Amino acid sequence: MNTVPTVAKADLKKFFNPASVALVGATDDLSRFAGKVLMRMSDFGYKGKIYPVNPRFKGQQIRGHECYGSVRDLPEAPDHVGVVVPAQHVMGILEDCAARGAKFVTVYTGGFAESGTAEGKALQAEVVALARRSGMRIMGPNCNGMISFVDAFAMTTSATIAGPRQPAGNVGVVSQSGGAGQVNVMWRAQDAGVGISYQVSCGNSADLNIIDFIEFMLDDAATDVIMALVEHIPDGRRFMQTARRAAALGKPIVMVKLGRTEAGGHAAASHTGAMAGSDDVTDAALKQCGVIRVDDCNELYEMAMLLRAKRIPQGPRTAATTISGGNGVLLVDHGAAHGLSWPEFSPKTRETLASFLPKMATTANPVDVSNALIGKADLFRRCVETIAADENVDMVIPTYTMTPRADLEAAVEAWQATTKPMAMLWIGKCNDQAGFTQLTVAATGMPVFRNTLACVKAVKAAVNYGQFSAANAKRAEPVRPAGIDVEAARALVSNADGTMTERASKQVLAAYGFPVTRETLAKEAADAVRIATEIGGEVALKIESADIPHKTEAGAIRLHVKGNAVVREAFDAVMGAARHYKPDAVLDGVLVQEMAPAGLEIMLGLVTDPVFGPVVVAGLGGIHVEVLRDLAYRVAPIDQTEARAMLDELRGRKLLDGVRGAAPRDIEALCDLIVRLSWLGHDLSDCIAELDVNPVILREQGAGAKVVDALVVGRKS
Amino acid sequence: MNTVPTVAKADLKKFFNPASVALVGATDDLSRFAGKVLMRMSDFGYKGKIYPVNPRFKGQQIRGHECYGSVRDLPEAPDHVGVVVPAQHVMGILEDCAARGAKFVTVYTGGFAESGTAEGKALQAEVVALARRSGMRIMGPNCNGMISFVDAFAMTTSATIAGPRQPAGNVGVVSQSGGAGQVNVMWRAQDAGVGISYQVSCGNSADLNIIDFIEFMLDDAATDVIMALVEHIPDGRRFMQTARRAAALGKPIVMVKLGRTEAGGHAAASHTGAMAGSDDVTDAALKQCGVIRVDDCNELYEMAMLLRAKRIPQGPRTAATTISGGNGVLLVDHGAAHGLSWPEFSPKTRETLASFLPKMATTANPVDVSNALIGKADLFRRCVETIAADENVDMVIPTYTMTPRADLEAAVEAWQATTKPMAMLWIGKCNDQAGFTQLTVAATGMPVFRNTLACVKAVKAAVNYGQFSAANAKRAEPVRPAGIDVEAARALVSNADGTMTERASKQVLAAYGFPVTRETLAKEAADAVRIATEIGGEVALKIESADIPHKTEAGAIRLHVKGNAVVREAFDAVMGAARHYKPDAVLDGVLVQEMAPAGLEIMLGLVTDPVFGPVVVAGLGGIHVEVLRDLAYRVAPIDQTEARAMLDELRGRKLLDGVRGAAPRDIEALCDLIVRLSWLGHDLSDCIAELDVNPVILREQGAGAKVVDALVVGRKS
Repeated sequence: MNTVPTVAKADLKKFFNPASVALVGATDDLSRFAGKVLMRMSDFGYKGKIYPVNPRFKGQQIRGHECYGSVRDLPEAPDHVGVVVPAQHVMGILEDCAARGAKFVTVYTGGFAESGTAEGKALQAEVVALARRSGMRIMGPNCNGMISFVDAFAMTTSATIAGPRQPAGNVGVVSQSGGAGQVNVMWRAQDAGVGISYQVSCGNSADLNIIDFIEFMLDDAATDVIMALVEHIPDGRRFMQTARRAAALGKPIVMVKLGRTEAGGHAAASHTGAMAGSDDVTDAALKQCGVIRVDDCNELYEMAMLLRAKRIPQGPRTAATTISGGNGVLLVDHGAAHGLSWPEFSPKTRETLASFLPKMATTANPVDVSNALIGKADLFRRCVETIAADENVDMVIPTYTMTPRADLEAAVEAWQATTKPMAMLWIGKCNDQAGFTQLTVAATGMPVFRNTLACVKAVKAAVNYGQFSAANAKRAEPVRPAGIDVEAARALVSNADGTMTERASKQVLAAYGFPVTRETLAKEAADAVRIATEIGGEVALKIESADIPHKTEAGAIRLHVKGNAVVREAFDAVMGAARHYKPDAVLDGVLVQEMAPAGLEIMLGLVTDPVFGPVVVAGLGGIHVEVLRDLAYRVAPIDQTEARAMLDELRGRKLLDGVRGAAPRDIEALCDLIVRLSWLGHDLSDCIAELDVNPVILREQGAGAKVVDALVVGRKS
Repeated sequence: MNTVPTVAKADLKKFFNPASVALVGATDDLSRFAGKVLMRMSDFGYKGKIYPVNPRFKGQQIRGHECYGSVRDLPEAPDHVGVVVPAQHVMGILEDCAARGAKFVTVYTGGFAESGTAEGKALQAEVVALARRSGMRIMGPNCNGMISFVDAFAMTTSATIAGPRQPAGNVGVVSQSGGAGQVNVMWRAQDAGVGISYQVSCGNSADLNIIDFIEFMLDDAATDVIMALVEHIPDGRRFMQTARRAAALGKPIVMVKLGRTEAGGHAAASHTGAMAGSDDVTDAALKQCGVIRVDDCNELYEMAMLLRAKRIPQGPRTAATTISGGNGVLLVDHGAAHGLSWPEFSPKTRETLASFLPKMATTANPVDVSNALIGKADLFRRCVETIAADENVDMVIPTYTMTPRADLEAAVEAWQATTKPMAMLWIGKCNDQAGFTQLTVAATGMPVFRNTLACVKAVKAAVNYGQFSAANAKRAEPVRPAGIDVEAARALVSNADGTMTERASKQVLAAYGFPVTRETLAKEAADAVRIATEIGGEVALKIESADIPHKTEAGAIRLHVKGNAVVREAFDAVMGAARHYKPDAVLDGVLVQEMAPAGLEIMLGLVTDPVFGPVVVAGLGGIHVEVLRDLAYRVAPIDQTEARAMLDELRGRKLLDGVRGAAPRDIEALCDLIVRLSWLGHDLSDCIAELDVNPVILREQGAGAKVVDALVVGRKS
């Protein structure tokens, strides 16, 4: 959980479109960082007032602007100040900026927290404190600034904006990294015909972070899609809220999140904790709030290419036309493998197609016009329009290889004539006009892809996004179920220090409405006999000791015990094994417990993610967890629908329906427990670090579940 | 199994480089197929003799060549004849070609087997028969011909070769499809700077198929890498032999194999059969023979870009340089996720780097030269050369964003100065010379990638290929294990018609050296009692009836039976259940069987793949097969090493090592059974269609395994 205090939402209009800008450390020398920044700013066409600041050049002209000795001396309060001075001078400059009433500062200088040194971290803390104290908002340090194509303002060294300024588009770029955000994402997007509104690389994100910039782009009319290249999410909960708002506004966020392979590095006392890889949690959290996660930077703009048209497919039913049979097979094959379907056209559609298509063509889906239509643009346009009008079709992909211009334009015309989602898949080039390229098509706003798999993946992600948005629109905040006694549970946990016993852990769960085994602690053998008689039938005997969390490993457990003599004998055996296993352990006694009913073993758990906070985990028990790591995650709290979706993600899902003649399991009861556990995490994450419920025995439909063992790991005070 | 008779290997030199060519159906009309073919052939610069053939234009000039009325009238026997006439006239023309002594014919015309009609199939069969009878080799029908950049000869309509002829390169292209092979693969490869030697699209592959063309390219010096876009593999066994030879020659085959989603379509009586998806088998078979399978056509040439340099990494240890921290993170993250490692440099390397790198740079891997080296090309070259010389490094990836020409050339010089495998990852563009592009680098032969993930995937595939090649070089053909009685097994199976009983199935396995449960058939209850006594301990009773393959479903099975009265009772119960389940079933009696020992349930099986023939299958039993489909496949026969590799592919692999305190299993015994089963498939695939060994109980290390149940499905005669 992020502990940065909440600050007022920044209005970043003047950040991107300042009336006046100061650059501290300014110089004419183009081999210097600040020299490059000033050159780019001028070349990019910034029309506002520029104040170079540098005591060395005080009173001189730099690029035609009078240079000042200090920000304090400026004739007006600048909207945005760029700072390019050595790290040890940054705080002094920031004080000057705050004193002069600057609204925004971007600090380019490195040598702060990213250095890993204590000095660097302390220096960065000072920057944050100043921002909080003064209300002046700061980007960086250790960043490469920003670019607004909307406002023709850039303050960065990036060579990506050399040459004529690219026209603004409706896709924004946020990243912490400079080079990768500006080259891999922004410049490459433009190179593929995707226009950019704003770009920021916010570096160490001491004050302003990617969420602030995403929020600006959500509120700003110039941006419809946001591409994010993210090394770390600064505040998981706030990010998820922002992402849900993005979905509600119909402004998709597409993200490359680095750190897939850092997973599972943290030490953990509980089973669940050891199983949770942080990237699995990130993956689940991003899905949960509708962020479209892609693998590499090119997929960001391929996805944006599709989404910026603001036509989201209502479902996976795809239709295509092709002039190459092989390409039809490729498209259908990849589409089906990725979850797109290829519906039959309606009788009306087939009739219409047959009325104008030549005999060689088919009226199947994809329509293979088999070279017969090449050069007959009007027929081509009618063909695309006809299948786009079919009510069985959610998405249309006109596919081309080597093609005359008129045929390509026919698809663009069909795109313009309808509101159905479409993407052109154009593998080759234009036959009869060299200058007519994929960029020509992209300039019309029609999405255009060069590779089949990339096209199919983007379309499927858009389908998923559409489904998320529809569900998100109807979604209510999760409600705490009845029968939860938060304070009772809190009292139990806050008394604990570190690992709790099985019995105490189950009492916490019982306070949240979990059905647990009947059990009582026996201090002596005679107690055990009496308790076993009260419970009736077979019982289990287990050591109770906070010093022995792994009872099976200690051999301090006996199952299926029945009869007074046997119970007495088992009591002594359990105590003896525990003493042998860990001679200095404090033994509370022996837990006498009803034997669990027969059923399917389930594992539930809670972990605390450093970014997203309490996370609920569910999986099938036993080898499914230990060997196959077949687990699903959700940021807590969640509702029944999300709980069911978690189960649906499990590879072993079918076991819940009953296989090999077993009865279907009580899925509803299981979902109820997952929801309750998510609330437990939500309510008590300040005092619970991790929690295992392993196993829960899940009985047949209607017969509920029972918790057999549990382990709460409290936060050490 | 493919039943096409083996024919003599074709020498295709004259196919690609004919001294004389005839085109039947020739015309001047460029709107006609044959008109386009003739135009492309001329434009492409073919220098040999061209004979247009068309009775309509007999004696006239077509594109400056005298037109003949029939191939029979040609003044010489043409090396290669192209045929563009309606389907019904094709056989007549082929007779003419054979009569005149043509060596090769390419039939472009469609309307043969691909039409799905009986007439089309019959016509194609006639084409094949003529090829076999005459020895004249035929490509097509229903194809778009071929292109030789080596010999400047093309016979195709494809617009991909319009304009100046691209220089020949060392990468060949084979496909069945015309458009996709020529545009998605060949033209796009050239567009990315990968030069092509030959391209063929062999259509219906009635006679010559992709394997013939691959063999030609293996024998021909002009081709070092083969790209294949494949809709169907014509002969799995021959293909695998060819692919192994390709690996031995160091000429990698990269393939897109369509049909991932056609999997599992065939009906199957056995468990294994139902589990086997043909694409899983294809995937296994391609790995087994060293073919590099990729997903989409662009990955074909991305892979070829790397492989054509003929520097195969010896292992996964990768080093990189970067001028952008974010790109370093991206590369390391994707690399690690795909199985590349990032070793520390040797002390010597770090010392050398430190001697010339500026302080801002690090000597870690990747070397982040942090803008400090931009424009200092000499240092850059030394940096790349130094890390390339490190013995801990198998592969070097110099990474660039927006870069001056000299820095890019520095990497190329380093590439030329060493023999270590390298790939440039160049995301952006050249800062100071617009015409210096990725194509400029590719033209030097140095592999160059534009996207991180694509680069990493290609490098990892090359690492895998290198490991395959090393193993393949040492590989001996699998040897049949001792203790196999092929004829005894064959006799048992050939008497069966369809499904065999458990007992008979196990007898087949016993003939191949499988340990099976002791068991005897009891006709009456008294027999059962006597047999149970002989076996001793607990026994199982199971119905024996060829009409009831699924005994559990019928309820005709009793386990853990002991004592005369209980055995007698169980006998009657099993017979009764079987009669109730299927009143008309012929009941042979009740099988009395020793109870299986405790152990891990394993499932083994055989399926017959229509392309690759007998395939052995192995997986963990129970839910691992039924729910998780955790299975591994190999084309039979295989050796112990392959059997072990199969087990290593299983997601549940760890169960074999023992989890939750269980002892490690007898993996060696299991591998022995997999090898034996693969020989059974190899030896008896003519009479066995499918085979389940399910379960095999695998005991702890050294204690072996035991087959508890089995089901042989014979081929119906």
